[in-house]
Amino acid sequence: MTMSGSGTAEVTLGEASEREALKRIFPRLPASSATIVGPGDDAAVLSAPDARYVVTTDMMVHGPDFRWAWSTPYDLGWKAAATNLSDIAAMGAVPTALVVAIAAPSSTPVSDLESLADGLRDGCAALAPGCGVVGGDLSVSDTFTIAVTAFGDLAGREPVLRSGARAGDVVAVSGPLGAAATGLRLLFARAVDSAGEPDRARFEEVLREHPELVGAQLRPAPPIGDGPRAADAGATAMLDLSDGLALDARRVAEASGVGIDLDPSALGDDVEVALTGGEDHSLLATFPAGTALPGGFRAIGAVVSGAGLSVGGRPFDERGGWDPYVGWDGHGG
Amino acid sequence: MTMSGSGTAEVTLGEASEREALKRIFPRLPASSATIVGPGDDAAVLSAPDARYVVTTDMMVHGPDFRWAWSTPYDLGWKAAATNLSDIAAMGAVPTALVVAIAAPSSTPVSDLESLADGLRDGCAALAPGCGVVGGDLSVSDTFTIAVTAFGDLAGREPVLRSGARAGDVVAVSGPLGAAATGLRLLFARAVDSAGEPDRARFEEVLREHPELVGAQLRPAPPIGDGPRAADAGATAMLDLSDGLALDARRVAEASGVGIDLDPSALGDDVEVALTGGEDHSLLATFPAGTALPGGFRAIGAVVSGAGLSVGGRPFDERGGWDPYVGWDGHGG
Repeated sequence: MTMSGSGTAEVTLGEASEREALKRIFPRLPASSATIVGPGDDAAVLSAPDARYVVTTDMMVHGPDFRWAWSTPYDLGWKAAATNLSDIAAMGAVPTALVVAIAAPSSTPVSDLESLADGLRDGCAALAPGCGVVGGDLSVSDTFTIAVTAFGDLAGREPVLRSGARAGDVVAVSGPLGAAATGLRLLFARAVDSAGEPDRARFEEVLREHPELVGAQLRPAPPIGDGPRAADAGATAMLDLSDGLALDARRVAEASGVGIDLDPSALGDDVEVALTGGEDHSLLATFPAGTALPGGFRAIGAVVSGAGLSVGGRPFDERGGWDPYVGWDGHGG
Repeated sequence: MTMSGSGTAEVTLGEASEREALKRIFPRLPASSATIVGPGDDAAVLSAPDARYVVTTDMMVHGPDFRWAWSTPYDLGWKAAATNLSDIAAMGAVPTALVVAIAAPSSTPVSDLESLADGLRDGCAALAPGCGVVGGDLSVSDTFTIAVTAFGDLAGREPVLRSGARAGDVVAVSGPLGAAATGLRLLFARAVDSAGEPDRARFEEVLREHPELVGAQLRPAPPIGDGPRAADAGATAMLDLSDGLALDARRVAEASGVGIDLDPSALGDDVEVALTGGEDHSLLATFPAGTALPGGFRAIGAVVSGAGLSVGGRPFDERGGWDPYVGWDGHGG
C-alpha cells in the first residue's frame, strides 16, 4: 500500500491482481450501442449494419506524448479517446466503440486507472455519444503506455479519403488551429522547474491563467459530429489535423494530385502557429465550390491545380508539425 | 548511424523520420482480404459480410512479456499475431485483419521493425491465410511495446462464448498443453547468465537442444482453423488457453455455472505443467456428448453439475497461470 496525499491507503496494480483491477475499472467504462457481445469473453462482437466498419489505432506513451506533471489520468483517458474518435470522424463515420490496452508501472494506484476510465467515459459521452469501450488489456511496464483502437459506422456513406480533392474545391476547417500547440508551448516555457522538467505547481499556475489553451492541449474536444456532416454535405477529401495544418494539408494535396492555397487572413492572429502547430485534431476538408459548409466548418483556402502548399499564393515549404523521433529527447517526466 | 555486428550501417528510428520508417515497413506487411480502404488514410475500412465483426486487443511489453536476449524481432511479430489470432478463433471466427501499434526506443534499428513486420506476415500466412495488417501507429518509448488489435468474421456463425457449457458436455482441447510454459521454464533456468539475466549465447544452446519447447514459447502456432471448425461442430463454449488450463477451465465453469472434471490420464506426462502452464494459446472447447470432435480436438474431461475444477474427481484449487502483476519483478532484459 502507498499513502496518497489525502492520507487514504491506495492499492497499486502490483498489489491487486489483474482481475481485481479490472473489476474496479470495468463498471466505469462507457457502454457501446454497437455491442453484440461485450467485455468478458476472448473477444467482443460488434454490429456493422452496412456490412463495413472503420478502424484506427493510436498509442500514447509517457514522455513523448504526455507527462504526469501536466496531465491527470482523467485527462489522458479523455485525450486517448478524443484523438482516436477524430480519426474515425475524418473518414465520415460515426464512432461506435473503442478497445483500450494499457501498460502501467506496478506502482500505479488502481484509482488512477479508475480516473482514466472516467476520462474515457466522459470523452466518449461529450464527443461521440453511444460510443463505448468493448474490450481491453492490462499489462505492466516501466513506461505508462495506452493504445486505443477505435471503430466507426459509415451508415451507408462512402468513406471520405485524403485523395478526393479537386481543383476549384473550397478548403475548410472545423475546430481550432494552433490552440493545442500554443498550450504546449506555454507548458514547456512556464510549467517547468529550473532544470526544464515538467513541474506540477507551476503547471497549476499556467492552467489558472490559460485554461482554454492548456485544455486544448490536454483535453481536446474535436468536432466529431462534423465528420459525418461533412460527408453528407459532399466533402471530397478530409483528414484530422494531428500533425499541423501545413503538413496535413500537404498530405491531402499529395494524395489528391493537386495544390492547396490557404488564405492567411483566415488563419487567425498567429498564422505561423496555425500552420505548424500539431494536435488540434480539428477536421480539414475540401468541398465542391458553392457547398453550404456544414456544422462548424469555415473556409480557409482553395484547391488549385499544381502541387504542394501555398499561403496567400506563396509556396510554404516549412516542415512544421510533429515527428515523434525528432521531437523527443528521451528524458523528462 | 550505429554499426551492426555484420559491420553494415544501420539506420535507427531516431535517425529516420516516421514516414521513412513506415515506407520501409509497410511493403513487408501482409494484405487483408477484408480491406475496402487500406493503410494511408486516417482509418481503414473493412468489410463485415454478415454485418458483425469480432474484436480483441493484446499488448506485449519488453520485460514481462518478452526479452530481446531470447526473442528476435521476427519472433515477436509472429507471437503478437498468433496470440491475437487465437482470441478471434476462440469465438468461432476467421481472423481477417490486424492493426499494430508499436512504441520503440529511438535507438531501434529500422531493420528490426522490418523483421518484426516479416514475423507478422509469416505468422498470418501460416496460421490465418488472408488475414493482414490494415493500419498501425509508430511511437517512441524507452520500453519496447507492441499492441495488436485483431478482427474476425463469424461468417454467419453464432459466436461461441465461455458461458455455454452444459453438464454432460465433453471437454476437449486442440493444441499443446504446457509446452510454452516448459519452454519458458527452460529459458529461465538455463538461458541466463550467472546473475540470472537473460543471455543470448546460453539461449542459443538451449534452443539447439529443445527447439520445439522453446519454439512453443517464442513462436507459438495455435490451431486457428480449429476455432471455426469447433463452432461448426456445435461447440457450446470455447476460449483460448492463455493463462493455463486450470485457470482458464475454471473461467468456463464459472461463466457457465457448471463444474469441469479433467481426466489426468489425458493431460500428458507432466500433469502439473499441463494444468498450470500458460501461453499455449491452444483452444479449449466443450461439445455435446457424442459430437465427432473436429480438427485437432481431443477429449480431456467432462462438464459436470456443480462448480469449480476437479482433476480425476478431486478438487483442484491451485491458482496456476500467469498474472502480470505477480510474475514480473520489473528487472532483467
